[in-house]
Amino acid sequence: MSDTTHIQLAHGGGGQLTAELIEQVILPALGGPQKTGELTDSAVLDAPSKRLALTTDSYVVHPLEFPGGDIGKLAICGTVNDLAMAGALPTALTMALIIEEGLEIALLKRILESAGRTAAQAGAPIVTGDTKVVPRGMLDALMINTAGLGDVLAGADLGFQRVLPGDSIVLSGPLGEHGLAVMARRKGLSFSSDLLSDCTPLSQPAAALVEALGGELHFMRDPTRGGLAATLADLAGGSSHNVEIDEASIPINPTAIAAAEILGLDLLTVANEGKLVAVVSAKACDTALRVLREYQVAREAAEIGRIVGQTDTGQLPLVEMITKIGGRRIVQMPYGEELPRIC
Amino acid sequence: MSDTTHIQLAHGGGGQLTAELIEQVILPALGGPQKTGELTDSAVLDAPSKRLALTTDSYVVHPLEFPGGDIGKLAICGTVNDLAMAGALPTALTMALIIEEGLEIALLKRILESAGRTAAQAGAPIVTGDTKVVPRGMLDALMINTAGLGDVLAGADLGFQRVLPGDSIVLSGPLGEHGLAVMARRKGLSFSSDLLSDCTPLSQPAAALVEALGGELHFMRDPTRGGLAATLADLAGGSSHNVEIDEASIPINPTAIAAAEILGLDLLTVANEGKLVAVVSAKACDTALRVLREYQVAREAAEIGRIVGQTDTGQLPLVEMITKIGGRRIVQMPYGEELPRIC
Repeated sequence: MSDTTHIQLAHGGGGQLTAELIEQVILPALGGPQKTGELTDSAVLDAPSKRLALTTDSYVVHPLEFPGGDIGKLAICGTVNDLAMAGALPTALTMALIIEEGLEIALLKRILESAGRTAAQAGAPIVTGDTKVVPRGMLDALMINTAGLGDVLAGADLGFQRVLPGDSIVLSGPLGEHGLAVMARRKGLSFSSDLLSDCTPLSQPAAALVEALGGELHFMRDPTRGGLAATLADLAGGSSHNVEIDEASIPINPTAIAAAEILGLDLLTVANEGKLVAVVSAKACDTALRVLREYQVAREAAEIGRIVGQTDTGQLPLVEMITKIGGRRIVQMPYGEELPRIC
Repeated sequence: MSDTTHIQLAHGGGGQLTAELIEQVILPALGGPQKTGELTDSAVLDAPSKRLALTTDSYVVHPLEFPGGDIGKLAICGTVNDLAMAGALPTALTMALIIEEGLEIALLKRILESAGRTAAQAGAPIVTGDTKVVPRGMLDALMINTAGLGDVLAGADLGFQRVLPGDSIVLSGPLGEHGLAVMARRKGLSFSSDLLSDCTPLSQPAAALVEALGGELHFMRDPTRGGLAATLADLAGGSSHNVEIDEASIPINPTAIAAAEILGLDLLTVANEGKLVAVVSAKACDTALRVLREYQVAREAAEIGRIVGQTDTGQLPLVEMITKIGGRRIVQMPYGEELPRIC
């Protein structure tokens, strides 16, 4: 008798077993249509507004489930948030699964149900997908790709080129919770229940910023892999302006600080999955903070720094942090991979 | 000194090494923009026509290079062809790489250059992407996801519900070349140079069919995983009509037939990556064949069968093949995976 509790290679053959997996496990878990007979390889959609955003990310996080989330929730949040950072609301998502032969089907169901719930919460319908199964040992358990199509809000005018000296830099909440929650689970460490991944869709606060600030909102990015350090280094490099942040103004989660010390990590370089960095004109900063703080996920939003002009031409733009004791520290683009498989 | 010829885990960290990999290897190979500083996580596009097609596929083919193609070419063709089958021309592609630590960078370059060439040939710009690196042993070498956004041609009106009894079924060329070329390479068999993967973009012949036939073109699908058997079983199930094909009319590649016999495979279930099945009204069949045969990749297009009404209500729709000796054989949806990692 064939094993009905674990994924078999035959589930990926494009035949009857693939159809059964999609009909009996994947679609019900995601909350989608109920028959593969109605499915084709492409979804056909009415075009949204005049400008579209298109994004893709693969998720390879290990372990698949971690405090505050799992790879399914992450695969929705990460992609929805990339759209949100482009000033776009999600119109449609794709979801492509690569599964290792032998994966427990109950685990797959939990992950897809979590993805389905998160997609519904984010107002992002999953419209098409793909399922591949590879032989045991050829892939670690499960990897997911989601691509996202978004409708760019009319008032959004974002980009490195819009960033100006004097602009304020806003961060929506404390750093490092996603990366630390995953690392703690991976290493079998248990901190207090306060240390959960911050994995969450940011479409609503991001759209609210676009709506409230219009042209005063110049740039948004979610500080995922590489953390705030990578986001700010990109911001400096992309805009050709220096960036200055104040350590004392960065929102903190005391448990995250303790966890980062135990794990030997710099909070500035740890991945977040539910935070945004916004660059806004100085005069719009108070409005930005007020708008963000209306959302539970951004209630600790703070102004953490500013864009400053380059003093010397010919120098590469820098990110500097004014430390709590008044010193200056250069924040560098992380070199490589401190935390493999964090997202 | 760090190894500069193979992918390191640090290439996936979202930091400086990731930027170098993208700037020095990925973007030049794909023929894209030359600076990561200009890149954001989403591409923003002008919306095409009123109807969009959206699709996704992951590619896990093994080996990465095979006679007639490689995973890069395949990742473009497969996704472009899913759009083509929806009556859409490609507007934008995403490309997400998951790379195993230790992959040879020269191999990655060859694959990406092949992808870039194929995308250019298909008129499908790669507008955004993602790169993840996982530790050695967690993934076999390289897997690629491409999602595709397409502009549905005005005249396209396709779907299972449009398939009617009496319609003709057209196949654009001989079966099984992709699956057999990959399997032969995997098993170290060498057939003649005639056995190459048929991997090719089908946007042009598909669009020509839409243009020439308009409402007389009822359905298209590319017979990839599961082969023609899976495509016809889906067609019967989705349309609730019986399907009948004539074995003698199916275009053949004699080398493929020999290879299938040696490998013990049924050509009807072997994957193709450059063929299409079209269901057209009987009166438009000659036009369809004439249009397809103008394209080198479809010069052997043939009418292979027809849609027939169901004789008994309550019975499940069937696919039957009239064999060369005049018998009848039921063509079943393949059960599972005959050929893992074929695409």
